[in-house]
Amino acid sequence: MPRANTQLKADRRAEILDAAQRCFSRSGFHQTSMQEICQEAGMSPGNLYRYFPSKEAIIADISERNRAQAAENFATVNHAPDFFEGLTAVAHHYMVERSAEEVGLCAEIMAESRRNPDISRLYQDVERDIKANLVAMLRRAADRGEIRGDLDFEMVAATLMVLGDGISWRRAVDPGFSPEAVLPLIMRMVHGLLGKTEMPQGQARLP
Amino acid sequence: MPRANTQLKADRRAEILDAAQRCFSRSGFHQTSMQEICQEAGMSPGNLYRYFPSKEAIIADISERNRAQAAENFATVNHAPDFFEGLTAVAHHYMVERSAEEVGLCAEIMAESRRNPDISRLYQDVERDIKANLVAMLRRAADRGEIRGDLDFEMVAATLMVLGDGISWRRAVDPGFSPEAVLPLIMRMVHGLLGKTEMPQGQARLP
Repeated sequence: MPRANTQLKADRRAEILDAAQRCFSRSGFHQTSMQEICQEAGMSPGNLYRYFPSKEAIIADISERNRAQAAENFATVNHAPDFFEGLTAVAHHYMVERSAEEVGLCAEIMAESRRNPDISRLYQDVERDIKANLVAMLRRAADRGEIRGDLDFEMVAATLMVLGDGISWRRAVDPGFSPEAVLPLIMRMVHGLLGKTEMPQGQARLP
Repeated sequence: MPRANTQLKADRRAEILDAAQRCFSRSGFHQTSMQEICQEAGMSPGNLYRYFPSKEAIIADISERNRAQAAENFATVNHAPDFFEGLTAVAHHYMVERSAEEVGLCAEIMAESRRNPDISRLYQDVERDIKANLVAMLRRAADRGEIRGDLDFEMVAATLMVLGDGISWRRAVDPGFSPEAVLPLIMRMVHGLLGKTEMPQGQARLP
């Protein structure tokens, strides 16, 4: 296949994913039809089905995109000169910068995974991956002496995922919730759990 | 109305709420029909409609029940001889003891509140109530000198709600999640945020 054509196909796929993300976030995964995604993407059903045979196939690609984004985030923390500064930057990205649409989609995937086995499998795959990356990130930081080494990192990873889910859901359902205002408290809690010393003054200062 | 009759009606209502809770948790709020609730409760539609005109009316009563339960929890913390011990007991109740069905229902209400204005209103009412109670509980503890007094308690309450949502959702979607194993880390984080001193040895010990 000529290169320009491959690029065109990739662009088209990305456009469909964006359109589907808007639909799922707005109407819910269950209530969104392929027809609605066609309209949002401005293409015919025949054309759309050449790219994706089902809603599940679309979610699979969105999950892959999220997984790649998560891998980038972990690389940011792993390469940051200071672990807590890196983690704060990633938390800011994840908690504050993500669009309402991305947060909504995440909520919809979680809700749908409760009764759709295909979605559940996709969701659990991504979650397993994220947890393994979190554990590796924590081990590396402990090896470097940046955090306490006497913790069960599997449990710490589960705790960080509790925070991630909680923030996503607050954003998804509570219009008055300000992730930016809560971030310093979250980071202070995480520092209290992982830090070897008191939190430095001026870093993630309390409001 | 004779007293025995009133009691009978209250029992019947409670049975319907329990049956509806099972249905919503299993099938989702949107996908559950009044017919399904009738079957689960073992009563005729005509009879059920005498108690509740709609699914929304059922959820309103379930919300009221949850609100009463939350009020009891707050009383437990407020009357505990030690704030953190009281909070740990309530967290254990909320995180570990609640049935999978209650956790599932909570997830379904949150998901449904994203696009059903009636459910959203009910949900926001309960949440506002819980937040006000949390703030009052924190202020009281600060007044007694049990926690730091220099925090923005509205923000702390929002942070505790992030933890509560995160734990509910982990339980609702992740079969491998052990709330019991994570509770000590959560309490350690909360202590790191609120405590005036280091956490006492032996209290909410780390695994």
